[in-house]
Amino acid sequence: MIKVGIVGGTGYTGVELLRLLAVHPDVELTAITSRKEDGLPVADMFPSLRGRVNLKFSSPENADLTKCDVVFFATPHGVAMAQAPALLKAGVKVIDLAADFRIQEKAVFEKWYKIEHTCPDLLEHAAYGLAELNREDIKKANLVANPGCYPTTMQLGYYPLLKNGLVDAGSLIADCKSGVSGAGRKAEIGTLFSEASDNFKAYGVAGHRHTPETSAQLQRFTSDKVSLIFTPHLVPMIRGMHSTLYARLTKDISNEDLQKLFEDQYKDSAFVDVMPFGSHPETRSTRGSNMLRLALHRPDNGNTVIVLVVQDNLVKGASGQAVQCMNLMFGLEETTGLMQIALLP
Amino acid sequence: MIKVGIVGGTGYTGVELLRLLAVHPDVELTAITSRKEDGLPVADMFPSLRGRVNLKFSSPENADLTKCDVVFFATPHGVAMAQAPALLKAGVKVIDLAADFRIQEKAVFEKWYKIEHTCPDLLEHAAYGLAELNREDIKKANLVANPGCYPTTMQLGYYPLLKNGLVDAGSLIADCKSGVSGAGRKAEIGTLFSEASDNFKAYGVAGHRHTPETSAQLQRFTSDKVSLIFTPHLVPMIRGMHSTLYARLTKDISNEDLQKLFEDQYKDSAFVDVMPFGSHPETRSTRGSNMLRLALHRPDNGNTVIVLVVQDNLVKGASGQAVQCMNLMFGLEETTGLMQIALLP
Amino acid sequence: MIKVGIVGGTGYTGVELLRLLAVHPDVELTAITSRKEDGLPVADMFPSLRGRVNLKFSSPENADLTKCDVVFFATPHGVAMAQAPALLKAGVKVIDLAADFRIQEKAVFEKWYKIEHTCPDLLEHAAYGLAELNREDIKKANLVANPGCYPTTMQLGYYPLLKNGLVDAGSLIADCKSGVSGAGRKAEIGTLFSEASDNFKAYGVAGHRHTPETSAQLQRFTSDKVSLIFTPHLVPMIRGMHSTLYARLTKDISNEDLQKLFEDQYKDSAFVDVMPFGSHPETRSTRGSNMLRLALHRPDNGNTVIVLVVQDNLVKGASGQAVQCMNLMFGLEETTGLMQIALLP
Amino acid sequence: MIKVGIVGGTGYTGVELLRLLAVHPDVELTAITSRKEDGLPVADMFPSLRGRVNLKFSSPENADLTKCDVVFFATPHGVAMAQAPALLKAGVKVIDLAADFRIQEKAVFEKWYKIEHTCPDLLEHAAYGLAELNREDIKKANLVANPGCYPTTMQLGYYPLLKNGLVDAGSLIADCKSGVSGAGRKAEIGTLFSEASDNFKAYGVAGHRHTPETSAQLQRFTSDKVSLIFTPHLVPMIRGMHSTLYARLTKDISNEDLQKLFEDQYKDSAFVDVMPFGSHPETRSTRGSNMLRLALHRPDNGNTVIVLVVQDNLVKGASGQAVQCMNLMFGLEETTGLMQIALLP
Repeated sequence: MIKVGIVGGTGYTGVELLRLLAVHPDVELTAITSRKEDGLPVADMFPSLRGRVNLKFSSPENADLTKCDVVFFATPHGVAMAQAPALLKAGVKVIDLAADFRIQEKAVFEKWYKIEHTCPDLLEHAAYGLAELNREDIKKANLVANPGCYPTTMQLGYYPLLKNGLVDAGSLIADCKSGVSGAGRKAEIGTLFSEASDNFKAYGVAGHRHTPETSAQLQRFTSDKVSLIFTPHLVPMIRGMHSTLYARLTKDISNEDLQKLFEDQYKDSAFVDVMPFGSHPETRSTRGSNMLRLALHRPDNGNTVIVLVVQDNLVKGASGQAVQCMNLMFGLEETTGLMQIALLP
Repeated sequence: MIKVGIVGGTGYTGVELLRLLAVHPDVELTAITSRKEDGLPVADMFPSLRGRVNLKFSSPENADLTKCDVVFFATPHGVAMAQAPALLKAGVKVIDLAADFRIQEKAVFEKWYKIEHTCPDLLEHAAYGLAELNREDIKKANLVANPGCYPTTMQLGYYPLLKNGLVDAGSLIADCKSGVSGAGRKAEIGTLFSEASDNFKAYGVAGHRHTPETSAQLQRFTSDKVSLIFTPHLVPMIRGMHSTLYARLTKDISNEDLQKLFEDQYKDSAFVDVMPFGSHPETRSTRGSNMLRLALHRPDNGNTVIVLVVQDNLVKGASGQAVQCMNLMFGLEETTGLMQIALLP
Repeated sequence: MIKVGIVGGTGYTGVELLRLLAVHPDVELTAITSRKEDGLPVADMFPSLRGRVNLKFSSPENADLTKCDVVFFATPHGVAMAQAPALLKAGVKVIDLAADFRIQEKAVFEKWYKIEHTCPDLLEHAAYGLAELNREDIKKANLVANPGCYPTTMQLGYYPLLKNGLVDAGSLIADCKSGVSGAGRKAEIGTLFSEASDNFKAYGVAGHRHTPETSAQLQRFTSDKVSLIFTPHLVPMIRGMHSTLYARLTKDISNEDLQKLFEDQYKDSAFVDVMPFGSHPETRSTRGSNMLRLALHRPDNGNTVIVLVVQDNLVKGASGQAVQCMNLMFGLEETTGLMQIALLP
Repeated sequence: MIKVGIVGGTGYTGVELLRLLAVHPDVELTAITSRKEDGLPVADMFPSLRGRVNLKFSSPENADLTKCDVVFFATPHGVAMAQAPALLKAGVKVIDLAADFRIQEKAVFEKWYKIEHTCPDLLEHAAYGLAELNREDIKKANLVANPGCYPTTMQLGYYPLLKNGLVDAGSLIADCKSGVSGAGRKAEIGTLFSEASDNFKAYGVAGHRHTPETSAQLQRFTSDKVSLIFTPHLVPMIRGMHSTLYARLTKDISNEDLQKLFEDQYKDSAFVDVMPFGSHPETRSTRGSNMLRLALHRPDNGNTVIVLVVQDNLVKGASGQAVQCMNLMFGLEETTGLMQIALLP
């Protein structure tokens, strides 16, 4: 059994890790830290876990995380970089769900996250946890940077197009929509029910932290200069993410070949579902599951290709993807404990 | 024109007052205070008011509220009692949307609200602002205690039954449901979209502050001892309140006579709609309007009568009712500025 | 492996059965019928099942259900009674999720459901599928009447009170609230998003079909005459049911003893969670799981006891409960395939 | 008083017309037709109108619409073209909220709407009812084609850019999102609460009927060839529309000048609010009001300009816009009866 610790179990990615790991056949939940909730039974905060998770939150001081085989950081940015070095030294694997190790360039990280990076030497050792594109690196890694939710959809949607040089890398437009849980479990007016319900808006159009992460990763797929317009929006739903990806085709290709390209690319990826050409994937078809579904469109058979991508932002976009990485890091079947079917309706 | 001041314009009852008063033909919005938002244009916080309300928030010190004819307190409990005495002395009428003057007994107030009442001598001068049952008092009042949202539905629903001695006052059960805006515009985890959406729960069953207010008012309608079970619930909708009121009939009466009793009681009340016997009023039929609708049921023609009552908790349950009181206090037609039709769908 | 057939796989209880059975370790999905969708892959209608359920809908004529070990009827009332006799004769077990076998008295059934009962002789052989109160009967049964969603909450909530003679059976009031999926997957105006969202209402107050079912079952728990007021309401959420049950105590009992009574009653029931006294269970704590949670309240320590009960109406209130019955009928562990943790948030 | 008739009063644009016209100071509601609901009081179907609209639905045969001064068609496509010629002949003005007169080319209309156009001669006499761009035509018109909801946002958002030759007309991308009421009040599975809630999806990507209408209108603003990608999505909210419009700048222009261009363009348009550069308009800031709000963005000061546009799809996107046209056609102030402030929260 893999002994698992979770730092920061009181947020949405934390409770989602608990939901997944509590039924994972090879995992033993060992420690969950929260300074604020020290001593509180986890199930008192999340009654969905009553009878299933018997741990209590413990303060970081009392939790001996070095006894774990792997520690997940479901924390705000900056926490993992402070604690990861010691854990890694003690032989504990680390999976960070925040951004601390996602961006390879220290300066870029510090520009966007406004904090100093305190262990930049670890950056080159961190594997980027997008298994579908980076499986072998993850298997060998002790430190994994779990991708952001938006970047996951953009990378898996654009990859086959960029990799095969089919589109103009310099005019990508990603119009993305996220459920409200992406904003986290924080007391804020903007995400109150009475503010976010029955409402729709864009946010962060001038610059969202997922832009540099995505641009840097997309750039790895092509030698052309990538230029990405990324517009995030807030949808009045709890879970779910829908990315509408636009690209301009620069090569002549039939719709059948386009479709085949995507199907071939992901035929061995259990969690990527390439739907029939022209489908309209719904976010709810992934609710609570680790699936990402996508479909291709080409209006009027012109030179614009649209990729519609959906996922559950808390599962494939966060905690499920992290467990997927853990499975790879420990030599387990990639799908272990992740075969939940989406809750529909 | 009536010069109006609002203390605490940044909450939901505050912005609702602004929505109503900005189109009221006899009102001139004069001052809105907020210590925290001093200097901020009101429309920057509430873009729905862009081009319609040109005031800025001002700190209480800078706002000379004594120049107003009437001041509304859309504040947490305790603010009105601190400022009302000076305003009243200066000849300004006061309408408090919080609880400071709702409960006549100082000790009861202090038990439930955990603060000392600093001007108990004003309690007997405060008119209880439920126009349908207390119209004449309000007309003469300089100080009005605007009723709570739940109490409004319970009083208007139970009144004809208690007044006419038809039911057992000692076994009233009010099962009430409120939209989330009733919790106010406060940064709290419990009312986040991701917590309150797609969810339903009871809260405060052990004791809600609206219980003593309601019990005391109901007691005024009958000489029998009133005993009320009041169970509030939270509904995943922004606005709306639905009270399901149960009472045990102690007298023989036909359904037709019951219905007639209610229709006669409210025939001169423009904002109370007695629907046909056996109707199922929907909260949305009052969304954004000052209407309260109710309907009677009598399962199996037995001795239980059910009154279903709906209203918009922010309008008839708060700000609309306050404007209704203002109209009466200034000799205007009771319905002035309050004839908006509910937004459906 | 148990060979399972489903009649009527296009509704919400049908797709929920598929979600549960597709991951059940002892089940082989064998046939799903739908006259209208004959030939359509199930996953084309429900994309959440892509890659997980490869069956196609087949017309009843083409599906040889007699090859199954058990057939679930996820159909409107009247279908099971037409097909069950032949299946039972062929040695196939039958679980009906509709009402055909829930009411023992033919006349009562026909009064409420407005159709003739065509196999009344089977009524006495049908086990009522509420495992927590009827486990042994279900184990031996070939025909199970799966309880209605509302009745499940009312029975499990009232049982310990009635069984122990603690309350006045003649004045029960059940104020119940259901998510919209309870209305089924039918094209109707009343349950459109634009009608049901941001809205709350009671419905069927004059008489809901779950009343006679519940009354008859409750009557089995006590020799006193049961009289039940049951008021259903529609909540703007997809899944979830919350019943607020009121009863008048007729015996002196401490809160501690009340609590213990419930805990003892359900200590061997894996799917009933008795929460601490005074808790407020939330429907979302059961979303997608087979758990029913309840909590006791006693306002002002008076003679009214309130039981708050929550469940997912499609799982414990329908398909999960049906699988629970199947497990018992086939000698499996009762919890097999039903240990999903609720999706929160 | 203007005598108004409404054909098709049972849909969402119909009831919205009633909400607006019932409080319009210069209107007398005269007739509302519905074959199916002949004789039913309007307020029985829409309880929000109880006490405010006392008309009954009447069958088209019984309603003498020729007595009206103006008739609104809130009907599916094809109805207005059948009845308009006779009404116009009788001197009655006609405003069609459907598509019958929106597309000038008969062949294009017939290709997209799959019905024959039976009065093509009227097409050239129909004014396109987008007052902000076509005010003078509307004032003189007897027949107005009220614009579609999506086209309204796209035209008002792109107009200043195209008119001034600032962007590449051949690479417009409009990523649009609509609330569910846009699908109308029709019994359909796809827009049930349990299908559309907590979900997000694109639809009609391969071709939506608003594409030819918009393209034809946009083409009028520029001599360059317009090519538009239009991607509609469904948002789980009742009302509201958000269009995210992308265009590639072909001329050098500062953000200040861009902003000024828009402000100047709409300075006399009471219902278009140009928000400060870089704002994020929210759909709820227009809920129930006739306002359309827009804001400009320019990521990284590059050559992509983004226009964010919001409106209430049932008001500025349909019924409010129609009343705005009526005001102009009858020489009233354009804003008469349309100054409702949005309902927030």
